Amino acid sequence: MSQKSKIILVTLGEELLLGLTPNGHLTYIGDQLRQAGNAMHANITISDSPEDIEDNFDLYWKKADVLITTGGLGPTVDDRTKEVIAQCLGETLVYDPTVMKAIEDRFAALNLVVSENNRKQAFHFENAEVLHNENGTAPGLWLEKDGKILVMLPGPPHELQPMFNEQVLPRFLEKGIVQEKENYIQIRTTGIGESNLETLLQPIAEREDGLELAYCAHPGMVDFRMSFPNLINPYDRLAELAEECKSLLGDNFLTTGNETILDIVSRIMRRKKLKLSTVESCTGGYISNEITNLAGSSEYFVGGMATYSIGSKEDLISVPSDLIQQHDVVSEEVATAMAIGVAERLETDYSISTTGYIGPGGGTERDPVGTVYVGIHTPSKTYAKRFSLRGPRVAQKRRVFNLAVDMLRKELLGL
Amino acid sequence: MSQKSKIILVTLGEELLLGLTPNGHLTYIGDQLRQAGNAMHANITISDSPEDIEDNFDLYWKKADVLITTGGLGPTVDDRTKEVIAQCLGETLVYDPTVMKAIEDRFAALNLVVSENNRKQAFHFENAEVLHNENGTAPGLWLEKDGKILVMLPGPPHELQPMFNEQVLPRFLEKGIVQEKENYIQIRTTGIGESNLETLLQPIAEREDGLELAYCAHPGMVDFRMSFPNLINPYDRLAELAEECKSLLGDNFLTTGNETILDIVSRIMRRKKLKLSTVESCTGGYISNEITNLAGSSEYFVGGMATYSIGSKEDLISVPSDLIQQHDVVSEEVATAMAIGVAERLETDYSISTTGYIGPGGGTERDPVGTVYVGIHTPSKTYAKRFSLRGPRVAQKRRVFNLAVDMLRKELLGL
Repeated sequence: MSQKSKIILVTLGEELLLGLTPNGHLTYIGDQLRQAGNAMHANITISDSPEDIEDNFDLYWKKADVLITTGGLGPTVDDRTKEVIAQCLGETLVYDPTVMKAIEDRFAALNLVVSENNRKQAFHFENAEVLHNENGTAPGLWLEKDGKILVMLPGPPHELQPMFNEQVLPRFLEKGIVQEKENYIQIRTTGIGESNLETLLQPIAEREDGLELAYCAHPGMVDFRMSFPNLINPYDRLAELAEECKSLLGDNFLTTGNETILDIVSRIMRRKKLKLSTVESCTGGYISNEITNLAGSSEYFVGGMATYSIGSKEDLISVPSDLIQQHDVVSEEVATAMAIGVAERLETDYSISTTGYIGPGGGTERDPVGTVYVGIHTPSKTYAKRFSLRGPRVAQKRRVFNLAVDMLRKELLGL
Repeated sequence: MSQKSKIILVTLGEELLLGLTPNGHLTYIGDQLRQAGNAMHANITISDSPEDIEDNFDLYWKKADVLITTGGLGPTVDDRTKEVIAQCLGETLVYDPTVMKAIEDRFAALNLVVSENNRKQAFHFENAEVLHNENGTAPGLWLEKDGKILVMLPGPPHELQPMFNEQVLPRFLEKGIVQEKENYIQIRTTGIGESNLETLLQPIAEREDGLELAYCAHPGMVDFRMSFPNLINPYDRLAELAEECKSLLGDNFLTTGNETILDIVSRIMRRKKLKLSTVESCTGGYISNEITNLAGSSEYFVGGMATYSIGSKEDLISVPSDLIQQHDVVSEEVATAMAIGVAERLETDYSISTTGYIGPGGGTERDPVGTVYVGIHTPSKTYAKRFSLRGPRVAQKRRVFNLAVDMLRKELLGL
């Protein structure tokens, strides 16, 4: 099997099409294959009804070198996936007493009685290998046929993921379907939009023969991936190009790989034993929540406040009420006072403050809806910057978070 | 166009196949179509490369009555989706100065310069209608051709979702692709698991001929939908059944429709002019963030604290340090003291507190990792409850939020 086997994923399940369950298998398996150097070619999501499987199976079996299916292996009478696919492939279903015993043992250990329905889960294709399910009843299947590979995996994520990791990926590696090492470099940027980034990289794109560039925008960051699909060993050239891009990007360079802005801030603060506090008005706890989502945050994050009312700002962090009256609660002056106030109250080296109108109501002539001030306090100074944002409330909170954390990152790096 | 038009969704984007971005469009659009009575038939996810689009477009255009595409409308040189699909369909691309003006206006408002690349976003199919993008640069497209409909939507969710809601669904309704009235009733429950709920409803399920029941579990709530697919006018029968289920469920009944627990709390607090504050340790701002995501929260939410360190608990809300030493910072006593402390500090009728070990580190013999105490303060009492949770950090925060808000809901309703 060549290194670039075409892998297609068929995710079965009406709940996916009805939007009841997110298609986590696409994200998980896609990520695993990406890391292993052979990106998924396509994904199709259909119901697990016999009609829909019959309609689609042959087409995708023909297109793919490797076909992975997820779901449809349950015990209920409407789980007929194995029967239908067996028919499409001309495979016989055989009963496997070893599998039945494993199912019986599992039920016994959970003090449950095996249902008659579970019996059908002990059937598999005559020519297939069984992938034992440590975390559920339905085993997976591995079938080599017509120079292709079919992998059938159970639906529940906590059953699929260990099975994929422990049994499928090693077989893929053995067969050369995936590699040990990633064949591209990703560079993560901040503060530069996708179109301006493309313009910046144009000279490199034109100069490098065979270079492929792909972009992916995230909130607050734009990634681009460089690869040389036709080179066997692109690694040195990629490393050189990465250095060149890093210089070209200057302050807009964030990292190679997948660290986020917050990952970087967290790493620096912990290494330098610095402390951080936050006081948020319009973002209402979004920032402290994001910070405390990362393990290790308790090493540097002392605490935060969501001072949603004007009173709580005066009360909790001693923002002078005449300052608020004179400049308006949404102002550079109040954002600065809030940042100093919380840093003093909680005795931290750094702090972040936010105050703004993120809608739907609010806004003044000077600062219409969408205006947000972000304050930063450092050991040497305190200041606030004004931003004009658009979009729904939650999107604006996210944007403010990204802007605030990037301001902090720049302070920490002396940029 | 018949009511049961076959709708196929094509989600474009290599980042989806690489597992870098979850396929949120499938979940969102699937859910919207389900609610509107015409479930999606299939979804295919491919890269937006010209080869992959050419390989697949004709096949799905032939199968579908309605084809929806997402993504691939960006300004960079590798965004060639419109060009390729135009070729597949035999459509000419025309430049639209109105669209270009909208793009220029948008950039001007954000103090940005339009890049030459953005110009291509002003092109559309000669026979298509432009779907104006309020939240980004790339407009969507609506094309009626060969008795079918093609809808092209921009990739970013905050651009796609409003466009789909405000422009696509109304057109679908007008064309009879979706229905106005939902032909089912949804009942939302809390505090009862999916399997116990199914057991509870079994007598009804067995008794009612033609009744279809579908379940959907959400964090903190389990929904079930009842429908009679074979009845032309099921509405009266459904309303009667809903009343019966409401009695059967008792305290586990939350609402019919889509109000969340927080929606209900928000509604009651605003109506009764009550005030709320929060103090969070392990949840780090998750709860105040969720509360402040809803418009109207400033009417009742005064403020919150994320007292992440022990010091900040003593400092900000006067939790006695000997109480912490005697009972441990994660305890019923400290959760209660925190709830009283913040309610007094911010002078609110109600408050919520959280303290716990949500991992990966921490935990004691009495309270291993996963133990969380939630405190509630009301005008008549303050108390805390202990919970044992599992799962990754963010999932545990979500679970604590749901438990806390439901405790508050019950207090407000006198349950």
